[in-house]
Amino acid sequence: MIRKEQIYEGKAKKVYSTDDPELLIVSYKDDATAFNGLKKGTIAGKGVINNKMSNLMMQYLEKKGVPTHFVEELSDRDTLVKKVSIVPLEVIVRNISAGSFSQRYGVDEGIVFDEPTIEFSYKNDELGDPLINEYHAKALKIATEKEIETIKKYAFKINDELKNFWKGCGITLVDFKLEFGKLSDGSIVLADEISPDTSRLWDSETGMKLDKDRFRRDLGGVKEAYGEVMKRLLENI
Amino acid sequence: MIRKEQIYEGKAKKVYSTDDPELLIVSYKDDATAFNGLKKGTIAGKGVINNKMSNLMMQYLEKKGVPTHFVEELSDRDTLVKKVSIVPLEVIVRNISAGSFSQRYGVDEGIVFDEPTIEFSYKNDELGDPLINEYHAKALKIATEKEIETIKKYAFKINDELKNFWKGCGITLVDFKLEFGKLSDGSIVLADEISPDTSRLWDSETGMKLDKDRFRRDLGGVKEAYGEVMKRLLENI
Repeated sequence: MIRKEQIYEGKAKKVYSTDDPELLIVSYKDDATAFNGLKKGTIAGKGVINNKMSNLMMQYLEKKGVPTHFVEELSDRDTLVKKVSIVPLEVIVRNISAGSFSQRYGVDEGIVFDEPTIEFSYKNDELGDPLINEYHAKALKIATEKEIETIKKYAFKINDELKNFWKGCGITLVDFKLEFGKLSDGSIVLADEISPDTSRLWDSETGMKLDKDRFRRDLGGVKEAYGEVMKRLLENI
Repeated sequence: MIRKEQIYEGKAKKVYSTDDPELLIVSYKDDATAFNGLKKGTIAGKGVINNKMSNLMMQYLEKKGVPTHFVEELSDRDTLVKKVSIVPLEVIVRNISAGSFSQRYGVDEGIVFDEPTIEFSYKNDELGDPLINEYHAKALKIATEKEIETIKKYAFKINDELKNFWKGCGITLVDFKLEFGKLSDGSIVLADEISPDTSRLWDSETGMKLDKDRFRRDLGGVKEAYGEVMKRLLENI
């Protein structure tokens, strides 16, 4: 399968069409952005790590019963995926308070919740990806009730599986962002990526941040943190 | 029952203690604010109208099975209410897109939803009353799951009743904000007020705004709009 036209370039990935109208190629870049694009940089080798990690995680989740867009890893940076129509909701699952949650509600980072939480943002750069709840998503026909129920079910299942997996790697899964898409038959599958770009991962013993917060907050050792997560993942998968 | 100490002064009301530790007196002011206090003004006679209207609405809702904090109207501006511990959630029910909803999601005002929506804001002036969903409210122990279920049940019931009532007055209930409180036995009751300060009310025929948006948006005829709503309410209750 070879790349045809580039049909989209996002902050961290490019997407190409292929000979098959139902398949796309995703190509991971080293570019990193934060704060809705206000902060920009590159993390050497990030694209290779995120491609590999996301693919391993997607295959792991498929085995656990979560359908994903993953088809086949083509190279270090390129992966063949099913073409989906993205549901324009960013789905965030949180186990521990951190980041925008802590800022928004004026609470410390590190509060362990009794139960995981879920929230949705309406994917819309112009509007700044505003928070949206299920009632509003339905009212604005962004997703149907059934689609939202499916997405919630998968998101909590993914959290259970990933929390458990990362625990075995000595890593605490704090929170993560998911995106879902619809196949041509209307069924919902996990899309986008699962990586330290889209997850908060803290070393279970030291609390050291092993994710994009090192870039966001200028903590240094960004590349090393991504490498450490990848190393532990490969040892445990 | 007489006013003792003033224990709180809000944007539109003062609250006094009484001889009975379980009862308070609320006194309605003519002061109006908008945009988290950035815009300030007065609407002559508003306090008298909102006091009367809120009391009539609360008594109407009590008859329909919704418990409220209302006890007795004492004067034009003063009402005796049950003392509650306010649940720090602003509860907004919407039937039609308008105001902050339209701005947040980049949609026109006036979209009639298939079903009413509900949303919560965390009552916290310093944080700017941020949107909060049920999962987060539970995670931060702002309310229990049972309290949230009760609040949602009452809020949708109130919407059904008020939408129907205002329809009989030739008025479309677009949206409104509610606050709930807990009595000393832990039971949830409707508190705060129901008025054109806290509701969007559009004339069903002309679409003319008969609520605080006339003040927020400098549309003129603010006092007259409040008077018109009160007149129609008195003719129909």
